Amino acid sequence: MILTVTANPALDVTYRTPALRPGESHRVGVVGRSAGGKGINVARVLHALGEDPVCLGFLGGTTGAVISDLLARAGIRQEFLPVEGLTRTTVTVVDDAGATVLNEPGPEVSAADWRALADVALTLLSPGDVLVISGSTPPGTPPDAVPSLVRDAVGQDVRVVVDTSGPTLLAAAEAGAHVLKPNAEELRAATRIADVHDAADALLDRGAGLVVVSLGEHGVLAVGGAGQERRTWTAAAPEVLTGNPTGAGDAAVAAIARALDTGLPGTGSEAALVARRLHDVVALSGAAVVAPVAGDFDVPTYQRLLARTEVKESHATR
Amino acid sequence: MILTVTANPALDVTYRTPALRPGESHRVGVVGRSAGGKGINVARVLHALGEDPVCLGFLGGTTGAVISDLLARAGIRQEFLPVEGLTRTTVTVVDDAGATVLNEPGPEVSAADWRALADVALTLLSPGDVLVISGSTPPGTPPDAVPSLVRDAVGQDVRVVVDTSGPTLLAAAEAGAHVLKPNAEELRAATRIADVHDAADALLDRGAGLVVVSLGEHGVLAVGGAGQERRTWTAAAPEVLTGNPTGAGDAAVAAIARALDTGLPGTGSEAALVARRLHDVVALSGAAVVAPVAGDFDVPTYQRLLARTEVKESHATR
Repeated sequence: MILTVTANPALDVTYRTPALRPGESHRVGVVGRSAGGKGINVARVLHALGEDPVCLGFLGGTTGAVISDLLARAGIRQEFLPVEGLTRTTVTVVDDAGATVLNEPGPEVSAADWRALADVALTLLSPGDVLVISGSTPPGTPPDAVPSLVRDAVGQDVRVVVDTSGPTLLAAAEAGAHVLKPNAEELRAATRIADVHDAADALLDRGAGLVVVSLGEHGVLAVGGAGQERRTWTAAAPEVLTGNPTGAGDAAVAAIARALDTGLPGTGSEAALVARRLHDVVALSGAAVVAPVAGDFDVPTYQRLLARTEVKESHATR
Repeated sequence: MILTVTANPALDVTYRTPALRPGESHRVGVVGRSAGGKGINVARVLHALGEDPVCLGFLGGTTGAVISDLLARAGIRQEFLPVEGLTRTTVTVVDDAGATVLNEPGPEVSAADWRALADVALTLLSPGDVLVISGSTPPGTPPDAVPSLVRDAVGQDVRVVVDTSGPTLLAAAEAGAHVLKPNAEELRAATRIADVHDAADALLDRGAGLVVVSLGEHGVLAVGGAGQERRTWTAAAPEVLTGNPTGAGDAAVAAIARALDTGLPGTGSEAALVARRLHDVVALSGAAVVAPVAGDFDVPTYQRLLARTEVKESHATR
């Protein structure tokens, strides 16, 4: 089973207008209203692939109720905890030139909210299951909330994937997360190391099992293994994909979670499990770029890329 | 009593960001979420002036529920009819340069919905009351819905104010609306007459009692009276006001409705009642320009303008 945590979900509203002109009034078409937030996007991709993920996180107010309703209609399992305040809305205005995004801040959560979330997560998870923690944390989140959940899940023989940024990324590495998936910019910002290989190494040194770095059109870089055994894999799509890059990272995480979800604890190192499916990580994330809404992916693109993406390994002696 | 009809209400969401840049992601502050739509704005202004208006219109879905809740918290009476579909949201992004507006389309309504609305309106209204019909009509509105409501209310000795555009403006004149309040652009577009005096005359010829034209910073022009007795009044603020012009027209309608709300039928011509309070129309609408959110107005500006705005009458022989 794959459980995805979205601490700061969003109601994603997408508008279409021919051209967004600051200072003017626009009649917009409503392209969609979807349940969003990175962990929810991961779950939506997994569900579309035939998996049966469970969504966990905090929801509040009318926007929270709309998200819950959208997930229920899609048949996606959910175990959200109610919080005070209004779950945020994200407005994306798509025009002929590109996408303009307006992100509201999320509602405040408390240490008690996080304890309740961890209790639910640890009750739902069994050894061999996968826990995905994705996205930003809302205001009020105690610094130890995410690393403590990572530690407890790892201690329960659950495989843990974390896609976040800043100090939480470093803390997740120290807590022993099996896989971290920052993009290059997030990795550099959190570690303050310019070289992505060196920065990934720094996260492994802190305790992570594998670091998968998304490099945009240059594909992904995965670095894993302990000490002298450090291994590096790369994979990139054999074609240039254009569209909406929001959600590509979430699709990558979905592929990673799927690679880890063997249902059995201890069947191989997490690094090896993910490395074997790195072409899937690239293919699914490329197929998400082509789809206009985050959490969706284009099936023909996925199938084409899956057949044509190669994984390369390079051994580096440190 | 003043009853305001908003056939196409909106949940008005206002965001603040230093600079809106198309193609980029923005973290926005949420300045406010308010119950919007022109008739609701009129009621909010009236309520702030100590009046006790009633809001009527169509609401649907979660956004409709939020609007209803916001009005209830504000203590504004409401008699909305539930409709299928989702009441629209209007997003206004205020940055240092100005305001960018994103208007969703409203949900579809039926002829039966309009019959139900008219039944409620005519039941609530007594002779001497004021009916305000403001704003656009949602998709599905039969062409006769607004004029038929105007005729029935006029027949019931109710004073009727209509603030709309296009064919509905012409039809409201023919149905005998006591006061029409287009802006200059709407007046020209509906009548296809370039001169605002001539265009206002055309609406009077069709059957309206008084036409109040908002001219932006040039104040208002009111033309009324039958045949040879046609009279013209003008009033303008003695200072230039800058801010958000959205809602200025609604504040003008609130002042007009208040001028008409004598509680007694037949106490004077509607033209004379409104002309006497034309300085109030200018003052309230100028005070609304200064307030950032439509439906609000700035009290010191209102008081200053009220004391300093003069009404001028010019007799024109036709």
